[in-house]
Amino acid sequence: MSLQAPDKQEFLSRINRLQQALRAQGSDGFLATQHIALYYLTGSMQAGYVFVPAEGNAVFYVRRSIDRAQAESAVRVEPLPSLRAFRLLLKQDYPQLFASGQEITILTEMDVLPAQTYTKLAQVIAGESGSRSVLTDGSAMLRRLRMVKSAFEIGRIEAAAAAAAEALAEAVAELKEGMTELAFMARIEYGLRIRGHIGLMRTRSYNMEIMTGMLGAGDAAAEPSAFDGPAGGRGLGPAAPQSVSRRVIGRGEPILIDIGCCIDGYVIDQTRMAVIGSLPDDLAAAYKQSVAIMRETERLMLPGTPSESLYAAALTQAADAGLSQHFMGYGVNQVKFLGHGIGLEVDEWPVLARGFTDPLEPGMVIAVEPKFTFPGRGVVGIENSYVVTAQGARQLTKSSEELIIVT
Amino acid sequence: MSLQAPDKQEFLSRINRLQQALRAQGSDGFLATQHIALYYLTGSMQAGYVFVPAEGNAVFYVRRSIDRAQAESAVRVEPLPSLRAFRLLLKQDYPQLFASGQEITILTEMDVLPAQTYTKLAQVIAGESGSRSVLTDGSAMLRRLRMVKSAFEIGRIEAAAAAAAEALAEAVAELKEGMTELAFMARIEYGLRIRGHIGLMRTRSYNMEIMTGMLGAGDAAAEPSAFDGPAGGRGLGPAAPQSVSRRVIGRGEPILIDIGCCIDGYVIDQTRMAVIGSLPDDLAAAYKQSVAIMRETERLMLPGTPSESLYAAALTQAADAGLSQHFMGYGVNQVKFLGHGIGLEVDEWPVLARGFTDPLEPGMVIAVEPKFTFPGRGVVGIENSYVVTAQGARQLTKSSEELIIVT
Repeated sequence: MSLQAPDKQEFLSRINRLQQALRAQGSDGFLATQHIALYYLTGSMQAGYVFVPAEGNAVFYVRRSIDRAQAESAVRVEPLPSLRAFRLLLKQDYPQLFASGQEITILTEMDVLPAQTYTKLAQVIAGESGSRSVLTDGSAMLRRLRMVKSAFEIGRIEAAAAAAAEALAEAVAELKEGMTELAFMARIEYGLRIRGHIGLMRTRSYNMEIMTGMLGAGDAAAEPSAFDGPAGGRGLGPAAPQSVSRRVIGRGEPILIDIGCCIDGYVIDQTRMAVIGSLPDDLAAAYKQSVAIMRETERLMLPGTPSESLYAAALTQAADAGLSQHFMGYGVNQVKFLGHGIGLEVDEWPVLARGFTDPLEPGMVIAVEPKFTFPGRGVVGIENSYVVTAQGARQLTKSSEELIIVT
Repeated sequence: MSLQAPDKQEFLSRINRLQQALRAQGSDGFLATQHIALYYLTGSMQAGYVFVPAEGNAVFYVRRSIDRAQAESAVRVEPLPSLRAFRLLLKQDYPQLFASGQEITILTEMDVLPAQTYTKLAQVIAGESGSRSVLTDGSAMLRRLRMVKSAFEIGRIEAAAAAAAEALAEAVAELKEGMTELAFMARIEYGLRIRGHIGLMRTRSYNMEIMTGMLGAGDAAAEPSAFDGPAGGRGLGPAAPQSVSRRVIGRGEPILIDIGCCIDGYVIDQTRMAVIGSLPDDLAAAYKQSVAIMRETERLMLPGTPSESLYAAALTQAADAGLSQHFMGYGVNQVKFLGHGIGLEVDEWPVLARGFTDPLEPGMVIAVEPKFTFPGRGVVGIENSYVVTAQGARQLTKSSEELIIVT
């Protein structure tokens, strides 16, 4: 499970694809600031900024550590002593853009970049007062670029999947009546961590947090929450209002085990169900229904299919089973998607939701999570992650789909 | 360790202090957006926005979960169906500000709010085109407000300190030669988690991540990193370039154990040193020097003392000991502070650094971390968290300061 660093060519080809997108849109460059984007484009997550011109070579301007960046980065590294120096460096390296007095359009990740830093960087780009050069939103361009994964990236997601499967199997062997959600989760997390989980699940959305995942039993799993997912969980209190609580796991309750694992920066996302004893018949039937939706989604997951049509098909199946009101949350607390891209972050594109009309492409990696919520009783469902291939969906999740029964 | 929720009065008094600050500055209101600010001001971390007018009552506009917010929030909760509806709601609730056509100044947390969301909210505040109302930066006002902790907050930090001390003692009992940094950290993290650690260490700075803390042995601890701290650690690879690595812990190496724990939203931050066998004399002497700096810092930690003078005194002590070049990192990789505020986030104010001239006040909680870096050999140092009282520093960290020796 040790990291095999990808060839530097991999990063250069990502930059190349970004440059094609810049030129297609008539933009002059991309200024990447988020640590995840820096890693994606250069192979190094050191502190600084990457500038990618629409034509020519990218440069990684590094505050610290310069040594590490030089050892890791596929693109040229330049020390960045201060923000003030930044414009001078850009003028030197890109005279045709920054020293020519022309009006240029530079994109950046406005969906994650704090407004304060954005304002400072926009001034750097605008340069002398009077210039009409702009720093504007390129979030979607970068998110689109990252949708399609390379063989290296898929390999890392599979490594995370293997670690998650092992950690889950190990922890389930210790699951017993009277254990708290927290204690069960702690056991899973220990297994993930010793297998190389980096200790974080990175998310893109503002205020979104994932604490390794969400584990919940019975009514606690079914509580509505701020989390933008079908089951947020009760949490440990108002300042940690999602995932596990100190609730004791009882007999006959659905135990939803939605866990992530991040290996070498790449995440897997999966959900399995367990029960001590047996599930009530109607919940067992709903679980089977979630598996049926998964099978149909797999069948539809072909290049060219619009993402949203997978969600639409799942809605129809849920309706046919008489479970519409329970699908992906209950009533007003339903969320409006079936799945989401995963990669360096847990909330990547595409989203399997209305409005995502882009066709699926080979290399997209998608977590599909049909779930049914029964207020006061629990959540049942399943989640697998897949890579889209020319031949259809290839499953990356490695845990058995069987309901885990503890006697 | 179960949460005793503070009286709603606590949150109302925070809002009251914020309103005083708004009026003193001539601003008309504060629009809080970050989940941590929402919790700080209302007692609920559900998704939405809090509007605090300079005069009058605050309202928590909630997207989800409305039920949870209503159960938890000290201020009135209003459902927020969409961003489009937001201005209408504000006009209804604050006609003197939003329906009167006057130019108003509203503050928000531009240090954390993404530029994309900021732009949308600024349009909401500006309202009809032509209005000159502005949404501008109030980050510093909120950070200042949060510097001084209540008895409830200090109690939660002490609960986190107790959990950290227990988890560390438990894990140290299993420390042995040949263990990897990762395995040792996983053991500590398990102990933290079963005691109620929420599974996250929240940070405010863009791109800053903390994976429970930083544990490093020998040369791995001393490697420069992107992390804005005296010791970032080697990490698990380029996409997780800080904290633990898979390096095996050897005999005679300084083991730096810088861990955090978050209970009910509040963090403790502490560092202890361990060694298998014994430390080389010069490193042992440097460790004693870090403890000496801690004692002097405690002595200086009195209300009225400017934060920066604690840093200046530590620099002098390090110089007197001939250790200037090793203090808080080595050479060009030194960081320029001695400590930092902690609370709901790990990187709060005040910072013990040049330029932080504000006097210490009772209720401030500060992590002090004098450390010495020896490239290729390791990092030695200590970190305690304190609350400033009228009588001086009161230590919150509960672990023994003795060098932990494993034979």
